[in-house]
Amino acid sequence: STMAESTNMRLRLPLLCIILEVILIILFGTLVEYNDDTHAKLWNENRTDSDTRNDHENEFYYRYPSFQDVHVMIFVGFGFLMTFLQRYGFSSVGFNFLIAAFSLQWATLMQGFFHGLHHGKIHVGVTSMINADFCTGSVLISFGAVLGKTSPVQLLVMAIFEVTLFAVNEFILLSILGVNDAGGSMTIHTFGAYFGLVVTRVLYRPNLDKSKHRNSSVYHSDLFAMIGTIYLWMFWPSFNSAITNYGDPQHRTAMNTYYSLAACTLATFAFSALVNPEGKLDMVHIQNAALAGGVAVGTAGEMMLTAFGSMIVGFLAGTISVLGYKYLTPVLESKLKIQDTCGIHNLHGMPGVLGAVVGAVTAALASPDVYGHGLQRVFADVETGKWNPQSRGGFQAISLAVTLGMALFGGLITGFILKLPIYGAPPDTHCFEDGLYWEVPGEEEGHQELYEVATPNEVEKLSS
Amino acid sequence: STMAESTNMRLRLPLLCIILEVILIILFGTLVEYNDDTHAKLWNENRTDSDTRNDHENEFYYRYPSFQDVHVMIFVGFGFLMTFLQRYGFSSVGFNFLIAAFSLQWATLMQGFFHGLHHGKIHVGVTSMINADFCTGSVLISFGAVLGKTSPVQLLVMAIFEVTLFAVNEFILLSILGVNDAGGSMTIHTFGAYFGLVVTRVLYRPNLDKSKHRNSSVYHSDLFAMIGTIYLWMFWPSFNSAITNYGDPQHRTAMNTYYSLAACTLATFAFSALVNPEGKLDMVHIQNAALAGGVAVGTAGEMMLTAFGSMIVGFLAGTISVLGYKYLTPVLESKLKIQDTCGIHNLHGMPGVLGAVVGAVTAALASPDVYGHGLQRVFADVETGKWNPQSRGGFQAISLAVTLGMALFGGLITGFILKLPIYGAPPDTHCFEDGLYWEVPGEEEGHQELYEVATPNEVEKLSS
Amino acid sequence: STMAESTNMRLRLPLLCIILEVILIILFGTLVEYNDDTHAKLWNENRTDSDTRNDHENEFYYRYPSFQDVHVMIFVGFGFLMTFLQRYGFSSVGFNFLIAAFSLQWATLMQGFFHGLHHGKIHVGVTSMINADFCTGSVLISFGAVLGKTSPVQLLVMAIFEVTLFAVNEFILLSILGVNDAGGSMTIHTFGAYFGLVVTRVLYRPNLDKSKHRNSSVYHSDLFAMIGTIYLWMFWPSFNSAITNYGDPQHRTAMNTYYSLAACTLATFAFSALVNPEGKLDMVHIQNAALAGGVAVGTAGEMMLTAFGSMIVGFLAGTISVLGYKYLTPVLESKLKIQDTCGIHNLHGMPGVLGAVVGAVTAALASPDVYGHGLQRVFADVETGKWNPQSRGGFQAISLAVTLGMALFGGLITGFILKLPIYGAPPDTHCFEDGLYWEVPGEEEGHQELYEVATPNEVEKLSS
Repeated sequence: STMAESTNMRLRLPLLCIILEVILIILFGTLVEYNDDTHAKLWNENRTDSDTRNDHENEFYYRYPSFQDVHVMIFVGFGFLMTFLQRYGFSSVGFNFLIAAFSLQWATLMQGFFHGLHHGKIHVGVTSMINADFCTGSVLISFGAVLGKTSPVQLLVMAIFEVTLFAVNEFILLSILGVNDAGGSMTIHTFGAYFGLVVTRVLYRPNLDKSKHRNSSVYHSDLFAMIGTIYLWMFWPSFNSAITNYGDPQHRTAMNTYYSLAACTLATFAFSALVNPEGKLDMVHIQNAALAGGVAVGTAGEMMLTAFGSMIVGFLAGTISVLGYKYLTPVLESKLKIQDTCGIHNLHGMPGVLGAVVGAVTAALASPDVYGHGLQRVFADVETGKWNPQSRGGFQAISLAVTLGMALFGGLITGFILKLPIYGAPPDTHCFEDGLYWEVPGEEEGHQELYEVATPNEVEKLSS
Repeated sequence: STMAESTNMRLRLPLLCIILEVILIILFGTLVEYNDDTHAKLWNENRTDSDTRNDHENEFYYRYPSFQDVHVMIFVGFGFLMTFLQRYGFSSVGFNFLIAAFSLQWATLMQGFFHGLHHGKIHVGVTSMINADFCTGSVLISFGAVLGKTSPVQLLVMAIFEVTLFAVNEFILLSILGVNDAGGSMTIHTFGAYFGLVVTRVLYRPNLDKSKHRNSSVYHSDLFAMIGTIYLWMFWPSFNSAITNYGDPQHRTAMNTYYSLAACTLATFAFSALVNPEGKLDMVHIQNAALAGGVAVGTAGEMMLTAFGSMIVGFLAGTISVLGYKYLTPVLESKLKIQDTCGIHNLHGMPGVLGAVVGAVTAALASPDVYGHGLQRVFADVETGKWNPQSRGGFQAISLAVTLGMALFGGLITGFILKLPIYGAPPDTHCFEDGLYWEVPGEEEGHQELYEVATPNEVEKLSS
Repeated sequence: STMAESTNMRLRLPLLCIILEVILIILFGTLVEYNDDTHAKLWNENRTDSDTRNDHENEFYYRYPSFQDVHVMIFVGFGFLMTFLQRYGFSSVGFNFLIAAFSLQWATLMQGFFHGLHHGKIHVGVTSMINADFCTGSVLISFGAVLGKTSPVQLLVMAIFEVTLFAVNEFILLSILGVNDAGGSMTIHTFGAYFGLVVTRVLYRPNLDKSKHRNSSVYHSDLFAMIGTIYLWMFWPSFNSAITNYGDPQHRTAMNTYYSLAACTLATFAFSALVNPEGKLDMVHIQNAALAGGVAVGTAGEMMLTAFGSMIVGFLAGTISVLGYKYLTPVLESKLKIQDTCGIHNLHGMPGVLGAVVGAVTAALASPDVYGHGLQRVFADVETGKWNPQSRGGFQAISLAVTLGMALFGGLITGFILKLPIYGAPPDTHCFEDGLYWEVPGEEEGHQELYEVATPNEVEKLSS
């Protein structure tokens, strides 16, 4: 059939994957080198010279456990969170896997290029691995908006552009404006959310209701999605603290995030029951809004926000996230034509903006009285003597505007590129359906028998 | 309908959640401060003064990986272990999530209050996070006894009281009696189990068999439960070692637990097959009894128990646990009117008592010959010069009695409070049913069609 | 019935489990001691004497996070990867659990014996725990070949022999030949794969197609299997780096593995779509072939392979693995009578051999120019002055031959032992069926009703 041909991936997907991987391999071969902590010669030379450096000072021992937690969030967290759709579990986990595996390689190059070359080379180690996973997270957030409506080829093309623009935006924020955003409220969540929302706006499908019956969950798919939710929730303290400075900042960030998420969870349950006529809880809220507390302390988490401040922020984030799912998402779809499959605006968009604002305020309130000698370990420009808390807060706020601008602009361009009819996108009648891109097995033995003997037609015949 | 109204959570749950969270936020704002390792000023001041303290000495690097493993046990381990029921997966994972998020905040305050204030303030860091998760674990154990028969409001009220009494009991044991219980055989498992058993006794439902058809597993729900089991099993070494002293005690505790669990697993498979007429294995045993080995070395694990001793204890724990499920649980229900949904008496109750006894014996056998200079790193009172192994063993045994008393007394009071008809508890006909408190999605597309065409009534009509 | 009797586990399984565990306990009691880092006396004695050893130098802090990641791979990774079969999930996770719990104890003894006794005693700590888990991994690989066709008693007997021969082979490679194989391309993957393939060859069942209808996946079982896949994929960097030297080797190995797996994943998606007539992706490939990149850098990962080299190896591994599933597995079954349920030849066999070859070449190319003082931290014989890269490469190649020989010989012997008709193996008609060894719950309430009213027979009656 025409439909089958138009979505056939037999040549498109292999060609794109192989070409991309070959390019990546060539670029890695010419540009990438081990850094001081991963290079056999460099690590041991330095050690011999000074006699003060011991193996436990290798950044591996400070960052690798956090890296693995982040890695779990990227592959299990995001992957399974999106399995809530009844017939899109293979694609949710599988395409998440594919675009993450690509993005982390591409991000290593893009971030390495912008973060500063060493004699023309990109140096890699556990910190670059965490940063690459972070950038990948941003792409996966955008994936949530277009979930079920895009082919794997489209997703890879989106990743190419989004990773690149992510690196540019991150460079502007961290290197030019010199702001703080260790957990990525701006660079990861705000950027990924608004980028994805614009892409899905450009790809608007007026006839998407033809696939409406598949755009919902079933009992077990909601349980699979909870695996994703819980892993994201548990490891978010590691996410926000993974690349902060060693010692108190890393420790404090993890703890602030822990309290923010706990308060957020109570707000989520409260408002989920409150907005339902029968007081019943909605799995969509629990799966998503309970995580907003992690997003919202992504910038301020490393600062002296206190457990008290973190809990207030988390509570607010959970509240606006549930209200967003209930009241805003339907409006975005009907009025603004933004079809946001996973509701990323509620989980990453608004909480990300909240996080940026909280970060700006907390930075503006910072003082040597509170931070002592620890001030320069949180705010990089203290050491340069140019530090001024008010201007710090200002730069943080400017960064939010820059991020929104980059996301909207980038999403627009990327959306139009993805609109070209060459990527095998699913027809409106076959969205949210694994069978288009996957060999899907039959039902269980017992069920199959039932199927064979009791299809609607047959029963109709029987009854006539 | 009256039933729907009586269990409606629309006002009760939001009100309780919001009031509790607001109280928590106020108390955190007035009472909680960063400790030396999380405070920007304090951590860096100390460091500058002495020049001997480096970032790698921050407790974060000694304890955070263990914390994350414990965190996984609390949210994934306990949460998914209870998804074995066919129609209670949302509530198992979801209510586990809710009461854990509340309990860890409340526990931080209660434990901080009893463990010692610093100039009227509670100091927090990764160790308090682990302790809060531990206390939460105790509440989740009790949850297992009342699973399927309580509303989320009841569970939150139970958590308020249980966390408080947990902190009192822990204070008596660790601070007044000065005993060892790093993995919580007494404080967590024995306390949580007998507290929950008394609560479920007070809430006895003579007509619970009206929900009998839902009080069992289905194929996939048993697989979801195995996710919980396996995570608890794997990370139990981290649980028992999370707050021991640095160095050899932490290392030794993890290893003793590892061997105890391995031996326990073989005992579980052996006795599960042995007690079945056809020699078939029972998922209930594998899901639960295989974990008893972790419970049973919760006190002695940090001592010089040896791998040999750990394996004997683990083997015994697995054995009594399987036998408990097979022979004791039915008697507890029929004779003592204790309806223990998850069989927590077999997984946490008896193995917890065994762990307390093993701990008392192992402490009584401790000597400087075996422990050398390490003695004072395991037994706190060695440094004070008051150490005497026999009295140590005696105090350990007294602690078990205190714990049982506190659990029985606390469970009794709490049970009667939970009996008040104001919490929206499920009726006997609708226990073990997610639909009461959750928006539950329909079945899969294909199945639904079957449903529509082949309900029992319709087929009856067809055949007539 | 005769069938039921012949597969009844009531005496066989308990007897074997209890006897094995009692023997293990006795041997541990007589042979096993805490090592310097887990012993209260030894750890603190050494510390006092020199005043230079601090708790953070305890091997626990260097290796325990890696150990836990490996542990997750063994119990969740392998266990859930094999749940893809529609009616064998209990056995996949459950027997994986049983034989792993046994093997890690038995491996501790066998490896301890061969790796060198200390005054007649085996010393244990976190490194021995990792090594025991590694050896267990090898047994679980072989389990994949015979999955669904063996009783738990057969599996335990297989584990007894395989662990023993694994330890002998590992001793020859690491201690006699002195080769590198930190991630076990040879010792774990090649050995486990070819051992298992020979066992399943000896146990060939000409009439296995009688169970053909159960030897396939269903929708949700494929999602459960993806839990296994993703955990294996994420934690493979920890697996390959878990027992390398501290510092740069551990850091470098993790990173090389990360890049190899990313490239492997793109190759897997590319070739999975390419070999399908409709360009549809096959879950079997994604679940398995995407992991081959971890296997293939198991030997060379700790060397200066570079990200570039790792990505080439990963890409090749993914490619040969998908092609193996598509074209080689059917031939192995039809021509060589090797019934390989999980396709371990494609995931562990060929990529393991590739990894051995890559390791030999990379070792032969090593030089002080590239490694500097780090050379002796990767290649043990540098310190002894006998180091010669070409002979190093030669020894690596010889090790592959030794491993293949040991695996084929050991698998042959073990296969014939497992062929004895005393273990309760399933009949050809009941392979891949949990119901033989497990109490299997009914279907969900709703489904059951359907079952009751609409079995094929009944509908036939209705229609006639």
